[in-house]
Amino acid sequence: MSRSAPLPHVVLVGGGFGGLYAARALGRRPVRVTLLDRRNYHLFQPLLYQVATAALNASDIALPLRSVLRKASNITVLLAEVSRVDLAGRRLVLDRGAIGYDALVLAAGASHSYFGHDEWEILAPGLKTLEDALEIRRRVLLAYEAAEREDDGAEQRALLTFVVIGGGPTGVELAGALGEISRQTIARDFRLIDPTKARIILLEGGPRILTAFPESLSRRAEDALRRIGVEVRTHAIVTRLTADAMWLGGEQIRARTVLWAAGVAAAPLARTLGVPLDPSGRVRVEPDLSIPGHPEAFVIGDMCAFLHQTGTPLPGVAPVAIQQGRAVADNVLRRLGGQPTRPFRYRDKGSMATIGRAAAVAVVGGWKLSGLVAWLTWLFVHIMFLIGFRNRFLVLFEWAWAYVTWHRGARLITGPWKGRA
Amino acid sequence: MSRSAPLPHVVLVGGGFGGLYAARALGRRPVRVTLLDRRNYHLFQPLLYQVATAALNASDIALPLRSVLRKASNITVLLAEVSRVDLAGRRLVLDRGAIGYDALVLAAGASHSYFGHDEWEILAPGLKTLEDALEIRRRVLLAYEAAEREDDGAEQRALLTFVVIGGGPTGVELAGALGEISRQTIARDFRLIDPTKARIILLEGGPRILTAFPESLSRRAEDALRRIGVEVRTHAIVTRLTADAMWLGGEQIRARTVLWAAGVAAAPLARTLGVPLDPSGRVRVEPDLSIPGHPEAFVIGDMCAFLHQTGTPLPGVAPVAIQQGRAVADNVLRRLGGQPTRPFRYRDKGSMATIGRAAAVAVVGGWKLSGLVAWLTWLFVHIMFLIGFRNRFLVLFEWAWAYVTWHRGARLITGPWKGRA
Repeated sequence: MSRSAPLPHVVLVGGGFGGLYAARALGRRPVRVTLLDRRNYHLFQPLLYQVATAALNASDIALPLRSVLRKASNITVLLAEVSRVDLAGRRLVLDRGAIGYDALVLAAGASHSYFGHDEWEILAPGLKTLEDALEIRRRVLLAYEAAEREDDGAEQRALLTFVVIGGGPTGVELAGALGEISRQTIARDFRLIDPTKARIILLEGGPRILTAFPESLSRRAEDALRRIGVEVRTHAIVTRLTADAMWLGGEQIRARTVLWAAGVAAAPLARTLGVPLDPSGRVRVEPDLSIPGHPEAFVIGDMCAFLHQTGTPLPGVAPVAIQQGRAVADNVLRRLGGQPTRPFRYRDKGSMATIGRAAAVAVVGGWKLSGLVAWLTWLFVHIMFLIGFRNRFLVLFEWAWAYVTWHRGARLITGPWKGRA
Repeated sequence: MSRSAPLPHVVLVGGGFGGLYAARALGRRPVRVTLLDRRNYHLFQPLLYQVATAALNASDIALPLRSVLRKASNITVLLAEVSRVDLAGRRLVLDRGAIGYDALVLAAGASHSYFGHDEWEILAPGLKTLEDALEIRRRVLLAYEAAEREDDGAEQRALLTFVVIGGGPTGVELAGALGEISRQTIARDFRLIDPTKARIILLEGGPRILTAFPESLSRRAEDALRRIGVEVRTHAIVTRLTADAMWLGGEQIRARTVLWAAGVAAAPLARTLGVPLDPSGRVRVEPDLSIPGHPEAFVIGDMCAFLHQTGTPLPGVAPVAIQQGRAVADNVLRRLGGQPTRPFRYRDKGSMATIGRAAAVAVVGGWKLSGLVAWLTWLFVHIMFLIGFRNRFLVLFEWAWAYVTWHRGARLITGPWKGRA
């Protein structure tokens, strides 16, 4: 145990990409590290939509933090919820008790933003956690089951209408997967309904989907979505939402299943800091990722607002969080060692979004890719990236199997049930 | 579609072993079949304890009923809950609507019995459903997490005490798996507690565990459990249970995690029949598995009380349900075809219980097996038995991987969380 008294204490909040990569970089270094997370696992969020659409198991994309960090004996993992940061007192107030620090790294991520319509959260679940993914899976599969039992034509139509709000990468991935489920996976499973007649609608408020990509790739993505049966609608702003319908201004769409992929807001923990935040609730950090006026406290990942050297804010994606996690570990060690910290610089290796089986768009090193080539690139990057051999192998196997058979292995509806017969 | 008018309508309630094997035997026969279940999947219950103890994923032991029965176009699967059976009117009242039948097979299984202490259900969850298994997993893993954060010695001790009530096969399997988790899987994952010091207690009310097995095998099972750190206590009757303690008469045991593997009662649906039930709520059926006075309605599996040709009641295990499922399909076709039905005869191929890695007891064809031989037999039988290639392969891989590494891949705590940080 490296708990000898003089070692400085570094506290990391959050075991996502940022926190985990910071922890790894601090393993076996001359610091005592405590990693706090509300969950006992690291989640590979880029594949979360595959859990939501029943292609992968929850445990295929999540690894217990204790296993990942087992060998770093200077790191203690605690399952805890942070209520408040006391920057002046250099301590965190937890759900139970408090914990002091010499250096702090906040990496608590982001959750959904419903743009002031918090009452929509229960009507249109978003996709950030494993529970979100299982809830979305449950709603989608139950909608087909209910449609099979429904006699009323209009109600059956509403049950077979699926709307995804938000045309960013998550919305595109979800809509693409929903299209494939309806057109392929369960196409022959029902006797009384025809799942291939299900209506899948992707709504985007702006002029095109995937606004972070070049316009030509947005168009290719739209084409690919349409080929698998997804209606793409741009300039579409949802003005009202109920349990069985939604409104785009005066137009009503009856739909029983609505999914949210539109807005993101930094973890509410940021608000307890008492420092300036950007409109999404993210902390505006110094070039070295520290909080202005608090050189011993750092914020990384989706929780921080950091301007790219080109002047645009860095997006909330895994590569940014990972690079910041490594950089912050270095800066923590520099600061504790009395050396000057270094400004963070993002090395952009590209971005990609997948649309379905064998279709994706990607920008890699200035190259614009689409179709099968982009999809194979996406597949390769994600598999290589998954942390831990077991996950890598299982995910590969599940995909290969799904590819050959069009089956989705994890097609189980779990969760609370009305009663016991 | 084989929905032409004159075909008789057979309704099956329940997609467990009994219902599923009956459905398979009725596929492509001259009947119209509707299979009703509250869940959309068939569950391989003999391995449910492996989900509870994080060795397997939920989807490794569950298959969507629609996939299993996809090719039998005369079978319609409906996700529905049956509220009541109207034997006189030959129809079932559902959660929504009703459905008539020409022949009926009830195979709704069993749930827990707390022997009049229904208030214990929330304190000591039992293991019958996937949700039960995930809840048990959650409680066990959270107990270790809470112990790691606990300063009070007595409370920490209570968090690290796990009690399993009931020394039948399920209780033995659960206790054995808990012992291995503590002694091996997570032994090196924590910094502040020593998981190998956790106390695991198996309580049995009778004079020995595994009463359905010969006495020599009960003793061997006890020895095997003790070797992996499980305390086995017989003649132990729980008289009181609270959230952090239990009483055996005057003796108190402080324990935060208590699991129930003691009593079983037939599905409450049996009570709506208005026919004689045995003390466990099971329907006393005729030799051909039909309900007395209702030759068109049959009950099979855990819901029926059937005397073995030796005079003892048949146990609630998969082989009985499977054989009854096949037999009942034959009797349904015979009856609809105007032929006399045939009495059911059980062919006992043996029974087995597993205790942990490489330890089990089994009685096969009069042979008493224990240790590695029994375990390999158990492993072989269960893997060969799993329905569907995918599950068979994945389960095998997960086990092999767990065997080599002592890891448990599915070690995720999911479920409701207190709030959002």
